[in-house]
Amino acid sequence: MAEKKLFTPGPLTTSVATKQAMTRDLGSRDTELIEIIKGIRQQLVQLAGVSTEQYTCIPLQGPGTYSLEAVLGTSVPKQGGKVLILENGAYGKRQAKICEVLGIPHKVQSYKLNEPISPESVEKALSDDGSYTHVTCVHCETTTGIMNPVEEIGKIVKSVRPDIVYFVDAMSSFGAVPLHMGDACIDFLVSSSNKNLESVPGWSYAIAKIDKLVACKGNARSLSFDLVAQYEGLQTNGQFRFTPPCHTFLAFNNALQELAAEGGIEGRAKRYRNNNNILISRMKALGFQQYLHPLHAGYIVTTFYYPSCPNFVFEDFYQRLSDNGKVIYPGKQVDGTFRLGNIGQLFAADIEHLVDCIKCVLTDMGVQVPLKP
Amino acid sequence: MAEKKLFTPGPLTTSVATKQAMTRDLGSRDTELIEIIKGIRQQLVQLAGVSTEQYTCIPLQGPGTYSLEAVLGTSVPKQGGKVLILENGAYGKRQAKICEVLGIPHKVQSYKLNEPISPESVEKALSDDGSYTHVTCVHCETTTGIMNPVEEIGKIVKSVRPDIVYFVDAMSSFGAVPLHMGDACIDFLVSSSNKNLESVPGWSYAIAKIDKLVACKGNARSLSFDLVAQYEGLQTNGQFRFTPPCHTFLAFNNALQELAAEGGIEGRAKRYRNNNNILISRMKALGFQQYLHPLHAGYIVTTFYYPSCPNFVFEDFYQRLSDNGKVIYPGKQVDGTFRLGNIGQLFAADIEHLVDCIKCVLTDMGVQVPLKP
Repeated sequence: MAEKKLFTPGPLTTSVATKQAMTRDLGSRDTELIEIIKGIRQQLVQLAGVSTEQYTCIPLQGPGTYSLEAVLGTSVPKQGGKVLILENGAYGKRQAKICEVLGIPHKVQSYKLNEPISPESVEKALSDDGSYTHVTCVHCETTTGIMNPVEEIGKIVKSVRPDIVYFVDAMSSFGAVPLHMGDACIDFLVSSSNKNLESVPGWSYAIAKIDKLVACKGNARSLSFDLVAQYEGLQTNGQFRFTPPCHTFLAFNNALQELAAEGGIEGRAKRYRNNNNILISRMKALGFQQYLHPLHAGYIVTTFYYPSCPNFVFEDFYQRLSDNGKVIYPGKQVDGTFRLGNIGQLFAADIEHLVDCIKCVLTDMGVQVPLKP
Repeated sequence: MAEKKLFTPGPLTTSVATKQAMTRDLGSRDTELIEIIKGIRQQLVQLAGVSTEQYTCIPLQGPGTYSLEAVLGTSVPKQGGKVLILENGAYGKRQAKICEVLGIPHKVQSYKLNEPISPESVEKALSDDGSYTHVTCVHCETTTGIMNPVEEIGKIVKSVRPDIVYFVDAMSSFGAVPLHMGDACIDFLVSSSNKNLESVPGWSYAIAKIDKLVACKGNARSLSFDLVAQYEGLQTNGQFRFTPPCHTFLAFNNALQELAAEGGIEGRAKRYRNNNNILISRMKALGFQQYLHPLHAGYIVTTFYYPSCPNFVFEDFYQRLSDNGKVIYPGKQVDGTFRLGNIGQLFAADIEHLVDCIKCVLTDMGVQVPLKP
């Protein structure tokens, strides 16, 4: 059976070689695995544009939400901490939910789903309330695909309050959208193995300014999610405190080699931008409307409105495309929309083929194309 | 390069087919993956000897320690909870550490590393202090390989205090040591994907009595480790709340088919017992001394004393065996010991070959064999 292509924001389609790299068993204390993990950590710091002298990468077993919870639970002091959460989607709201469950004082400053966070509003929020110790936001909010200006926000945060810890959820952007953690004044950033670096799910990671990280010792609300202990464990003997998903690190190591061969983040960004341009122009030619203003949309995942034709039923559309080997993504928080990702091992021909399939499937469903406005 | 064999308590050597099952990308919402996960959950409950009407399996992304933390953090009420931890090794102590970090009132009742927990002492502890809400212990304590009488303990716990929640860490025993959760009066049990069921690391699981589980709603100290929310998410649409390690579920699905082909838990236990018998008799013939009394030792992992010869240096011994494709395990908490596992895709010939290698390596190191007493 031919493998389905995943037009999702991840888990995504990975290369055959990346998957094949998982067909070896290595012990969790194996020196080869330890060297691989060490190399991965160094390369992730470098991909963040910064030096391993000042920054470190802390891989954590499990999905990206675990790393989000680990950064919040480890970095916010038990006494006197207060987090300003800037949100315009589900993943910003998830940070608020984590703070609520962990009992961390926080304020959610909400923006419209289709409007980027404005740096000026952040300046005002910090002037209005001097008690914040942390500011957080999401770089590419997967809910809609919107990009937030994390560099500008970071500069304003640090100009108003240099002592504040600035934390960015870069889950869907890291590795495909160039970002310099130093220039953006980011102290903690998180992402996951199954996003733009094109490996399989299994672990996520934080990249942290070392001085900010080690200052958090003793804060953690969890044994498993204690980022300082995880860091110290890895620094001591290169081993994880608890069993790592060994095979998925072998996959990731291969995926990083593929990234380098493609020209690093710039090379990958070029392919993803091209995928995205083809996707949007061809979908528009079919009559689909993009939810976001093009100025605000990134090139990772794109939200489209449903056709207005009553014959269109999303579940049917999804299943027919899936039967044709194309896996798409439902909308989130915006009624009457669906999402298409263009990341992973997808190339121009895959995008063309997807839109060709969408056209056929709509016709089969009795939806006239091009769509009526 | 030939693959190394892992003589460890896991991650362990898996079959080629189990690893090859990971060479497909499935979306996290894919109906095929959802069906696979549903089937795995049902089979795990059945392997615990109980019915899916009364018990459920909650898989959790990440290593076994995460499931330990999730059960403790979810099942112990925030007010009035108190845990009696029966420990004779590092994994019992880990439960105490989790309670400490989570702020859960607990008492550690310690036993010697080489002595099983005595059910009578548990009866006394419960009579002495009527405030316990939970009793926990480890089935096979990987620290030494000792087996604790979890059935007898469970029966005594429930006869003295039927309301108490009884939690067993069956990480290293589940799937190879027959255990009936109902007969043993166990309310919560945890294990992980990379143990006796012979799959790769990536996730762990709790098996829980449904009524006890749902009664815990609202207790959780963590968003990620909220077992009730994880259960409700899976029951609602079969999906994980957060990205699962999709590929490792495909591997596990294959591993379960291999277990069935081997004759289930009984068949696997037979092979592991045979491996263990060969290992111990051949190691004894070389002059090695077993740390535990044979009556207390399980057949999963065995602790041996170092040879007394001054030429024996463990790191050197380990590296030479590793260079020969045999990965062994250091000792834990017991000075001057190392451990050999005989679980995973290991057969009589592998054990024979390991001991042959040990003999050669010792001779190369200048350690006379048979060892002098």
